[in-house]
Amino acid sequence: MKSVSIHCTGCGQKFEANQAAFRCSVCNEPLELVIEGVNEGKIKEGNILTQTIWERYADFLPFFHKEYEVSLGEGFTPLTNLKKLSESIGIGDLYIKNESQNPTWSFKDRGTAYGVMHAKKLGYKKIGTVSTGNMATSVAAYGAAANMETFVLVSKDISQEKINPIAIYNPHLIKVEGNYGDLYFESLEIGKDKDIYFINSDAPMRVEGSKTIAYEICEQLSFQMPDYVIVPTSSGGNIRGIEKGFREFKACGLINHVPKIICAQALGCSPIYKAFKDGNDTIARVDNPHTIAHAIENPYPPSGNQVLRTLRSNGGKATAVSDEEIIKAQALMAEQGIFGQPASAVPLAAIIKLKTEGILKGNEKIVCIVTGSGLKYTAALDMQKLDSTECRLEELRDFISSNY
Amino acid sequence: MKSVSIHCTGCGQKFEANQAAFRCSVCNEPLELVIEGVNEGKIKEGNILTQTIWERYADFLPFFHKEYEVSLGEGFTPLTNLKKLSESIGIGDLYIKNESQNPTWSFKDRGTAYGVMHAKKLGYKKIGTVSTGNMATSVAAYGAAANMETFVLVSKDISQEKINPIAIYNPHLIKVEGNYGDLYFESLEIGKDKDIYFINSDAPMRVEGSKTIAYEICEQLSFQMPDYVIVPTSSGGNIRGIEKGFREFKACGLINHVPKIICAQALGCSPIYKAFKDGNDTIARVDNPHTIAHAIENPYPPSGNQVLRTLRSNGGKATAVSDEEIIKAQALMAEQGIFGQPASAVPLAAIIKLKTEGILKGNEKIVCIVTGSGLKYTAALDMQKLDSTECRLEELRDFISSNY
Repeated sequence: MKSVSIHCTGCGQKFEANQAAFRCSVCNEPLELVIEGVNEGKIKEGNILTQTIWERYADFLPFFHKEYEVSLGEGFTPLTNLKKLSESIGIGDLYIKNESQNPTWSFKDRGTAYGVMHAKKLGYKKIGTVSTGNMATSVAAYGAAANMETFVLVSKDISQEKINPIAIYNPHLIKVEGNYGDLYFESLEIGKDKDIYFINSDAPMRVEGSKTIAYEICEQLSFQMPDYVIVPTSSGGNIRGIEKGFREFKACGLINHVPKIICAQALGCSPIYKAFKDGNDTIARVDNPHTIAHAIENPYPPSGNQVLRTLRSNGGKATAVSDEEIIKAQALMAEQGIFGQPASAVPLAAIIKLKTEGILKGNEKIVCIVTGSGLKYTAALDMQKLDSTECRLEELRDFISSNY
Repeated sequence: MKSVSIHCTGCGQKFEANQAAFRCSVCNEPLELVIEGVNEGKIKEGNILTQTIWERYADFLPFFHKEYEVSLGEGFTPLTNLKKLSESIGIGDLYIKNESQNPTWSFKDRGTAYGVMHAKKLGYKKIGTVSTGNMATSVAAYGAAANMETFVLVSKDISQEKINPIAIYNPHLIKVEGNYGDLYFESLEIGKDKDIYFINSDAPMRVEGSKTIAYEICEQLSFQMPDYVIVPTSSGGNIRGIEKGFREFKACGLINHVPKIICAQALGCSPIYKAFKDGNDTIARVDNPHTIAHAIENPYPPSGNQVLRTLRSNGGKATAVSDEEIIKAQALMAEQGIFGQPASAVPLAAIIKLKTEGILKGNEKIVCIVTGSGLKYTAALDMQKLDSTECRLEELRDFISSNY
């Protein structure tokens, strides 16, 4: 029998699990679910065409009740081995976990679905989030699917191009003028006051949703673990979930060891990388964040300190890459058939950098998390040097003959 | 033991299966694979996390050899029941088969993958396609994944915005000036001459790939067939594949009956609908096609006549909806959490129209094929009346209190 409690990741304070709790009332660090009995969990084998990830992994989740389930078919995303690329970089094996094949084309759908289910279970009629990108789209979609009143808070300067794919789901979309970092904390206060369940970036139930990425990787690799899993990191919620998933499967005896986790950031906004490199226990706010990888441009990640603790206990590391390296990696990955948004190219850029630096030796088996679709932010393609040629139909045959 | 041959869908002429054949040399109608022994086929049960659709459905395919497999994780897409929407429209059950969760975010990936495998099997080093949208992206991606020289022929007036997500995969991208309809036929000639396997819209192996959509629907509905399956229709390759898949599963005894197939077009470009309505055996070219649903804006569908024959033998029908109806349906579907490109909203618009006309009675079980992601063509969102509100962070709490 499972027993579930919520612990502060910073001071260890325990909280009641059957409530919407997000941050420690003592030290303000993020909270995490602790599931006693998870080590006896079993994967519920079944036909994935008729099963949800929540049914399959129910034993490992803090709760699962079919009556609260809200699913658009999130998860069960492919893991693709890029043989040619791993050879050309000079590493053992390179796998892409392609989270762009989710219902709103990013990894966020896993955590959103699970957060919505928790909100429903607790009797909430309203949900919300603070985001300008993948998470806003995801929460708007799942709020619509769950028929819940949905608040999406975005910063005031967001472009109409970015607003449209959120607004189409018809949430209450509010542009908020003011410090965007403060908005995260203010939303949690407003949520308490107004009975709105804010499924923000590192909400404990979002982390629980993200851990299913690790479960799937284990199954897809027949429980033969990679050396490294590289995660583009912004708030820290996803990387925490992935590490937790591996840790739980190890506790169950399903895998022998937890892969080392690499936190990959963009140099233009890399508070976790900086603190890790400098040996600090806490992150410092980045003053003027600037990177093409908008999806991970968070100057003060709310789970930043916990990511530092996680990396150190896991034996993992942090790294950061330039926009130029990101753009190159995005094109390189597309040349293998996988087109991710700039943030999703950060892990591949990190591999290339770590190999050049000699930190990777050449025989490693590595999984990169591709967090979202390249269609999410096509303006970034203007930085690629993309070209095409032209000819007239009558001349096409000769044109092909003489040019290729 | 399977025995495979290729038949002309028009005159019945037989062709050798072990070659790249696309159209009948006698009557110029499209070709179709006939697989003797498919009625003894069995689904290869397995863990979908480690299985491809080609492995699972190998018994039903003209060929499958693991050494030629090229997969990015296509297929195994969700089927989602939209209960609230079926109630509000007044039909029995409404399901969405969400093909936007494919590697390049459209249904095209199934047929492209299978076409590439066939090209590899036949020893081709070069593949190509004629398309400006979903198929161009898909063929560019799979050509990259297969490490094959890839020719993507597009029309000269395509915008850079549409070029970029194709070009990122780095194919030979050629803008061709001239009649776009003629380009389809010319490409097949050039292909013969230059050893380029053109996986165009209704290539026989693309149709074989598309039929896996039907197989999955059967599994997802536990082999309890819907009354109708509605397919947005352009060239006719996808709808042909879907009908063939159901027909083959019926031949195997896996299902009791083949659902009626509805060909859904946009009124601004509806050659199949027009011919069906007028009782004609052949389609006529549409002179000035114009619709927001670009993905199905084909004025002279190369499989148009065969779609007419298929609809008549199947007992299905054709319908067409206006751009206004499409835009409304796109928003309505997003309000249930599923955001498709305009062409993908055509089936839902068709249901609403057919219900209003009394052709649907109200207890029908219907599957709509959502062919591609709403992110494919976000410019269409400018036609939606999407709005948002604004406030300052300090006022957010009061703003929410007084407005919601």
